[in-house]
Amino acid sequence: MSTAAQIRHTFTSSWLNVLLIAAPVSWWLAWSHVSPRWLFVVAALSLVPAAGLIGAATDQLAERAGPTLGGFLNATFGNAAELIIAITALRAHHTAVVKASITGSIIGNLLLVFGLSCVVGGFTHGSQKFNRPSAGPATVMLFLAVVALVMPAVLDLVSFGSLQAHPEEIDRLSFWTSIVLLVVYVAGLVFSFRYNRDPLRAGIAPSKGKHTTIAASLAVLAIGTLLTTVQAEVLIFTLAPALKALGMTELFAGVIIVALVGNAAEHYSAISAARDNKMTLALGISVGSSAQIALMVAPVLVLLSYAFGHPMSLVFNAFEITAIGLSVLAIAIVSLDGESNWLEGLQLLGVYLILALAFFLIPE
Amino acid sequence: MSTAAQIRHTFTSSWLNVLLIAAPVSWWLAWSHVSPRWLFVVAALSLVPAAGLIGAATDQLAERAGPTLGGFLNATFGNAAELIIAITALRAHHTAVVKASITGSIIGNLLLVFGLSCVVGGFTHGSQKFNRPSAGPATVMLFLAVVALVMPAVLDLVSFGSLQAHPEEIDRLSFWTSIVLLVVYVAGLVFSFRYNRDPLRAGIAPSKGKHTTIAASLAVLAIGTLLTTVQAEVLIFTLAPALKALGMTELFAGVIIVALVGNAAEHYSAISAARDNKMTLALGISVGSSAQIALMVAPVLVLLSYAFGHPMSLVFNAFEITAIGLSVLAIAIVSLDGESNWLEGLQLLGVYLILALAFFLIPE
Amino acid sequence: MSTAAQIRHTFTSSWLNVLLIAAPVSWWLAWSHVSPRWLFVVAALSLVPAAGLIGAATDQLAERAGPTLGGFLNATFGNAAELIIAITALRAHHTAVVKASITGSIIGNLLLVFGLSCVVGGFTHGSQKFNRPSAGPATVMLFLAVVALVMPAVLDLVSFGSLQAHPEEIDRLSFWTSIVLLVVYVAGLVFSFRYNRDPLRAGIAPSKGKHTTIAASLAVLAIGTLLTTVQAEVLIFTLAPALKALGMTELFAGVIIVALVGNAAEHYSAISAARDNKMTLALGISVGSSAQIALMVAPVLVLLSYAFGHPMSLVFNAFEITAIGLSVLAIAIVSLDGESNWLEGLQLLGVYLILALAFFLIPE
Repeated sequence: MSTAAQIRHTFTSSWLNVLLIAAPVSWWLAWSHVSPRWLFVVAALSLVPAAGLIGAATDQLAERAGPTLGGFLNATFGNAAELIIAITALRAHHTAVVKASITGSIIGNLLLVFGLSCVVGGFTHGSQKFNRPSAGPATVMLFLAVVALVMPAVLDLVSFGSLQAHPEEIDRLSFWTSIVLLVVYVAGLVFSFRYNRDPLRAGIAPSKGKHTTIAASLAVLAIGTLLTTVQAEVLIFTLAPALKALGMTELFAGVIIVALVGNAAEHYSAISAARDNKMTLALGISVGSSAQIALMVAPVLVLLSYAFGHPMSLVFNAFEITAIGLSVLAIAIVSLDGESNWLEGLQLLGVYLILALAFFLIPE
Repeated sequence: MSTAAQIRHTFTSSWLNVLLIAAPVSWWLAWSHVSPRWLFVVAALSLVPAAGLIGAATDQLAERAGPTLGGFLNATFGNAAELIIAITALRAHHTAVVKASITGSIIGNLLLVFGLSCVVGGFTHGSQKFNRPSAGPATVMLFLAVVALVMPAVLDLVSFGSLQAHPEEIDRLSFWTSIVLLVVYVAGLVFSFRYNRDPLRAGIAPSKGKHTTIAASLAVLAIGTLLTTVQAEVLIFTLAPALKALGMTELFAGVIIVALVGNAAEHYSAISAARDNKMTLALGISVGSSAQIALMVAPVLVLLSYAFGHPMSLVFNAFEITAIGLSVLAIAIVSLDGESNWLEGLQLLGVYLILALAFFLIPE
Repeated sequence: MSTAAQIRHTFTSSWLNVLLIAAPVSWWLAWSHVSPRWLFVVAALSLVPAAGLIGAATDQLAERAGPTLGGFLNATFGNAAELIIAITALRAHHTAVVKASITGSIIGNLLLVFGLSCVVGGFTHGSQKFNRPSAGPATVMLFLAVVALVMPAVLDLVSFGSLQAHPEEIDRLSFWTSIVLLVVYVAGLVFSFRYNRDPLRAGIAPSKGKHTTIAASLAVLAIGTLLTTVQAEVLIFTLAPALKALGMTELFAGVIIVALVGNAAEHYSAISAARDNKMTLALGISVGSSAQIALMVAPVLVLLSYAFGHPMSLVFNAFEITAIGLSVLAIAIVSLDGESNWLEGLQLLGVYLILALAFFLIPE
């Protein structure tokens, strides 16, 4: 196949790419000033295939690069779409949306992605077994992230009287805690390269698709990145008026909607894996992607926020911390027995639903 | 045996039924207005055999009905006594007692029932093994209940300033969260019917007693239900003056005393099972009964409270939420190794004792 | 060997004893009033070998005494140095330092000791296996301690408005909770004697050194105890001016520095065990020593505080409770899979570092 044919093949290999039509529609809506509500919805939809293109290109490059460099690529670009959307929001000073979407990505990947995987896999295959220890290191990573979120919040609340206080101590704790998280994350990468056992992406076998040329993959990566960046700009530009029109808080939009859009690819891969009776892979995508958000995306955003002159601390609000803590405990308890079924999936979806209901009802 | 003889047999098969004498004594005390203190104690005692009769009749009916319908009967009537007492308290607007007794039933079943089972079983048999995964689904159910209690409380505390606030959002969250709990509970029943593996009553083998006719069982069920209803009315009627006379808070009475009375049957069955070296069954009764209270009794009470025109939210107080959360974590950690001994039992009793001490010392 | 030679042998068998020179230096510094800062540092250093002597003598006596009495000796004197330092601080009314050093000993033993063990062991031996159930009872003990710390704090905060309130109820709850902890601790000792399976010191094999005479061991024990007592007096005497000079809070000094000094022996033994590929022993020292601090040292200090006429409650501050709770959860999650490696060690060290950063940044 020629490079052009390979690029075309990547675009036509997923039905999700039908949603690419949402991008030009969003531009037309933005130009015509018709409705911030519809612009928001259409821009959000357009981000699903844009993020998917980055994911597909990364997978293709990782496949060519071999396990070591490939693992590094996946670990770095695996959540590139979330990172781009968050950076766009950060530059527009929408700090609350950034934190909310980090929260939503973590709880969504743990509860919604793995919950749906258990339901879909359970209905097709009954009780499914998975390799429990393989999810262990990523679960500990997530627990480390919980500690990193709890301590700044306790410091803020107890020593400075509220979670809205922003004294110098909080910035220093956020900064150094982010460094600790990144160091442990990089140590995890080194560990995986040395032992050929990725602690963050357990059970992820190299895909068996045809090899694509590097040129074609880089082209798709560039297109995907450009499109994600543009559509993220559109989404964040219309955020304030759209939320007002929809009667929705920044918190709910970030936790539920932005997170769903940015993680559509993980949903798709994990559920496919569950349908193929590969629950170790499904659990690996779900827990690994959450850990990546918590230990790589979140600290990078904190450090970048200093460059943007608008420091973002690691102090999340009480709902976000509670939701993340409960989700990590839920996945730890559910993955204990090394077995999953549709009931367990439904229980995880129940946890997600209760959290989502609470986020929906939180007043401004 | 004739139906009358079978009914008589049910009444004479448990020494607990000696306590039935407490019922007429309580009526005499109520009529003579002697002492609210003694009336309270005697009415509480009379509820133990009354609840026991409902349990015995349910078991007999379940045995005849076969696993599917029998499981449904057990799942529905297994905590009928707690439900009747709670509804009586709810109708008399004693919301605090209702929540306290739900809390007490959950922590009592987890810590006291299983703790005593471990001690009794451990002293007779040394180290005892149990089938760990069989308690898994019920543990996840309990965790779901913890989430359902934590989120409304966080919403109330953070957005409305206190756990006493009762805005419309709290009622809406309580209502929909109750629906989610009931849906997952029903899904658990369906799961158990389909796979012949009850997630809430692991290891519960059909009892090997003689079959009793349906007529006799229904008669015992009717008598037990009637007696429980009447005695619950007496107990709740004398509650306020008795607590004043005893210098006891509604919270302590609900968490410790009402809960003990309503769960006497579970205590008896679980400890018997432990003595017979059936720890999987003992754990199943303890965890299963807790889960049933949390996912069936509590949401049903919330929904019924709307019918009574005095909505009860899912916002429990800080002590109750902490106690339930710690108990669920305790049982999860203890049941991890699939082994029990008297030390583990003593540790659970220690947790219960510390919680009970705290509830005793909480001022009005 | 003569008794004198055996005593000399004990003194020369550890290179840590070079630090004994710090004791006379501290006396000279105290006499010359040169610098409270340096006096504090030197007195702290001198406590490391002083605590080490008590540990060595206890080990020698335990070895001679056989498993039953030896286990009792270890269980009683295993944390004698921490106890002596804490009693000295308690008598000088430095309650905050006492609580901080209890906290620091618990989290240090769990995160720093076991974290370093995993890193050192992992680098030398790769992935290491350990006997998971053997750490179970001590983990449940630690969980019991968490409950014992959480309930008084919740009572104080919710019923009396702050963690600084000190009503009679808090003293009563602290007193009785301490009794419960001690009873369960003693029950654990009885359990270990009866089943020859120490729940608090799993995998600790009798050391294979030469037998030392009781006289020599008692002499070393006396010297170690005397030296620890004197140096603890020096340390506590210089505490206030030194902290002022160093710009350090009592909280940070207690949690990080005093705890490090008092637990140097545990660090040394656990890391040696890990280097010899005995991870069950390393985990046993780490978790067992923490449990001993929480269930024996802490309650004894609470009870003693009544004798000193300056009651110390079990109400720790929010940072201490959070740090202990998170550390216990961390060790429970890490020890779940029965396997350790350097990444897991680094993750535990990451948790410790984030906690230490927070304690460092907490203002007075």
